[in-house]
Amino acid sequence: MARNILLLIADDLGRMTGCYGETAIRTPNIDALAASGTRFDMAFTSTASCSASRSVVYSGLHTHENGQYGLNHDHHHFITFAHVETAPTLLGAAGYRTGIIGKVHVGPDAVYPWESREESATRDVAWVADRAKAFFDRAADDTRPFFLTIGFTDPHRDWTRGGFGNDQEFDPRVERRRFAPRDVAVPSFLPDIPEVRAELASYYESVDRLDQGVGLVLQELAKAGLGDETLVCFLSDNGAPFLNSKTTLYDAGIHLPLIVRAPGRKAGIASPNLVSFTDILPSFLDWAGHRGVSGPRRGRSLLPILEETELLPDRQLVFGSHTFHEITNYYPTRFIRTPRYKYHRNVAWKLDFPFSGDLYGSLSWEGMRNREPVMIGRRPLKAYIERPPEELYDLESDPEEVENLATDPSHARLLAEMRSLMEDWQRDTGDPWLYRDGISLRAVTHHVEAGLSLPDRYDFDVDDPGNGRNG
Amino acid sequence: MARNILLLIADDLGRMTGCYGETAIRTPNIDALAASGTRFDMAFTSTASCSASRSVVYSGLHTHENGQYGLNHDHHHFITFAHVETAPTLLGAAGYRTGIIGKVHVGPDAVYPWESREESATRDVAWVADRAKAFFDRAADDTRPFFLTIGFTDPHRDWTRGGFGNDQEFDPRVERRRFAPRDVAVPSFLPDIPEVRAELASYYESVDRLDQGVGLVLQELAKAGLGDETLVCFLSDNGAPFLNSKTTLYDAGIHLPLIVRAPGRKAGIASPNLVSFTDILPSFLDWAGHRGVSGPRRGRSLLPILEETELLPDRQLVFGSHTFHEITNYYPTRFIRTPRYKYHRNVAWKLDFPFSGDLYGSLSWEGMRNREPVMIGRRPLKAYIERPPEELYDLESDPEEVENLATDPSHARLLAEMRSLMEDWQRDTGDPWLYRDGISLRAVTHHVEAGLSLPDRYDFDVDDPGNGRNG
Repeated sequence: MARNILLLIADDLGRMTGCYGETAIRTPNIDALAASGTRFDMAFTSTASCSASRSVVYSGLHTHENGQYGLNHDHHHFITFAHVETAPTLLGAAGYRTGIIGKVHVGPDAVYPWESREESATRDVAWVADRAKAFFDRAADDTRPFFLTIGFTDPHRDWTRGGFGNDQEFDPRVERRRFAPRDVAVPSFLPDIPEVRAELASYYESVDRLDQGVGLVLQELAKAGLGDETLVCFLSDNGAPFLNSKTTLYDAGIHLPLIVRAPGRKAGIASPNLVSFTDILPSFLDWAGHRGVSGPRRGRSLLPILEETELLPDRQLVFGSHTFHEITNYYPTRFIRTPRYKYHRNVAWKLDFPFSGDLYGSLSWEGMRNREPVMIGRRPLKAYIERPPEELYDLESDPEEVENLATDPSHARLLAEMRSLMEDWQRDTGDPWLYRDGISLRAVTHHVEAGLSLPDRYDFDVDDPGNGRNG
Repeated sequence: MARNILLLIADDLGRMTGCYGETAIRTPNIDALAASGTRFDMAFTSTASCSASRSVVYSGLHTHENGQYGLNHDHHHFITFAHVETAPTLLGAAGYRTGIIGKVHVGPDAVYPWESREESATRDVAWVADRAKAFFDRAADDTRPFFLTIGFTDPHRDWTRGGFGNDQEFDPRVERRRFAPRDVAVPSFLPDIPEVRAELASYYESVDRLDQGVGLVLQELAKAGLGDETLVCFLSDNGAPFLNSKTTLYDAGIHLPLIVRAPGRKAGIASPNLVSFTDILPSFLDWAGHRGVSGPRRGRSLLPILEETELLPDRQLVFGSHTFHEITNYYPTRFIRTPRYKYHRNVAWKLDFPFSGDLYGSLSWEGMRNREPVMIGRRPLKAYIERPPEELYDLESDPEEVENLATDPSHARLLAEMRSLMEDWQRDTGDPWLYRDGISLRAVTHHVEAGLSLPDRYDFDVDDPGNGRNG
């Protein structure tokens, strides 16, 4: 049996699918895929930004390890380090035919050397399926297994205010289903106002098109007779393109769909285990029987836990890090997620939390900003813009992460534990944004070793600047 | 006559030379070069950071135009856009033999395709001169003219606290001259404290070595019989490696040496004209008789003004922009310099001004931070760390830029004029850090064209978030 891999990536989908509990949105094809494999209910990306999140998937490394700190395109211009081994490199070297169709959005090409590359921003999912069919046909004539990535453009916003690419012309196989603002289910991270409803209705149409694309591609896979020889993985790069979600490390931004269908494994599994997008490359390599990733990788293959329906003791902790989206969106922040709690470390907390261009221009934000009081879901605008150095939330009682427990004395022990876990992880992963006294520890490690005394505080204190020397 | 070009770059020198008025430091070779050509007394880099400043020299573009927003090496990992044409590209295409010896520090290689590349961090300036000699010898056998860059490592700090590479072993031709802390002249941007004096004494030794290197290289040029066929350009990438200077846009960081010796031109010229490092590539191209830089370049050749000793009307305005040094040193800031005034626009003013690793670890900073009151020269520490959105200084009465006139009603008209000049320039150069309402205008231009109303303010106002719609 060939051990093929098909990776399907939705753009800005979040968990907006039927199988993840959305009631007003219809995603029968994604739901069917979930029903035929394992649906991870507690899957987390490391960062809620497109290029960055994809780089984590492809490299198994957090962006502060792989260099893809933010968006790849235009003047943002972030690129992965030249020495990083990625899925196309490793699987290509392991004898796979590799390819990508649709959205790529990571670079440089030399670090992501897909053998065939059909980059496109199309939303014509029938075209995507046709290209996938052609790839499958070529693969059928090849003795090599394949690794194919399909990067859908839906349900990303288009270039307009409030649009989701629904007004384009598509192949007749793509059905056009309209949704009415009154019929949407406003998620708890957004306010129920007309502008949000209007955008969600358009968004649903884009999600529906994505779902059709998933169905068409999987049909082609089955028609090519490859269904039983192909690991299928479906995910979204980050949360839905709304405030409180995309570009943030709140759950709406990072708690994402992850569906894995591995031939020969039980169907219909719902996994409660906390898994990270850093686990995806190790899973692919495991599936491919590949050994030999150089350098430390913290991700672990999901294959051993595909059929596990209990929460395992060693799957209760996920870390992540976000630094940029656009080059002007500097906001280094890190998180820890446990089944119950979330800890955020905001390094540049003195800055206003930045808006990405698409969210700033959105009609939903225009609706929110001109209402009193200005609320982003349950979060007051002020709390969205002005963040403290640390946030700690109990997701059980507060799934929207609005009651910060970091300053609550009764949670002091938990906070200290989280802080310590975070710092250990930052140290282990060589995070440049592990700070003391306002400076990156990595920038002064050699000076500390030579005797530099660093005040034990996150931020520099201009009113107490001394470090105990010469005093 | 061949029209060769020799570019000599000092690392972190600032204007610490005899010919630029330092009394305690000896730089006879640099001074002799100045005496044989034109010494620009009002030359400004665009940004006080190594990779970034060099990219401006090589590309004639500001870093927000060329993508080299910060350091190139290690995890900082900034690179110039692939489409940018640089000195090695353009002069190579024009038939020049191109080469670099010593420090490179820009990337990627494809954008900086020097034909011969002898990258080295050595401070053994005799070795550098030997490599230059070998290059000149090869060039003498070539019908092509040459463009050679020499990137000296002196007088950059070494990896220790307070060291400048003086304890290494060098070729016997390199003379070792020690300086005593009591004999240094503490510049006005630094406090006169023992730690500063001690570091300056070490720094002087490194400057002296650089000066010897300049002398040795120019000797080799003369010995090869190329002195009369070679444009020689000497500059420093940024100011001296101390607070208030390197990584800042205060004059100590950006007001730099620029010496041009063009065969056949008058010697001993001191130019009062304000020139920018963006003028250097156009000067080289002019010297080479090259036409055909694509895309807008704002720099202008210096050759027509080499012998000009009067301040020309169209040489009274210089702009510059700094965004990063290290990847963790986000601090987008822009400046305008006129013969008398300086305007700073600090985009991320809510952040503490960041320390680079070398300056944070320096003994001089340790000396400053543990004294009361903490002063960086005439600047109180608080003013160094916490900056306002705008700064305006009268350099005539206040060369250290400590009396901010931006809030002085009697300078309101000048402030408005500066702001307007700055915004026009940011618009003309496509600066991503031209902000309105806390967002990059470039990120929302298409939304503004589609009707988005942007409040006319630099920063977002969380207490008055509306934009006048739906209100």
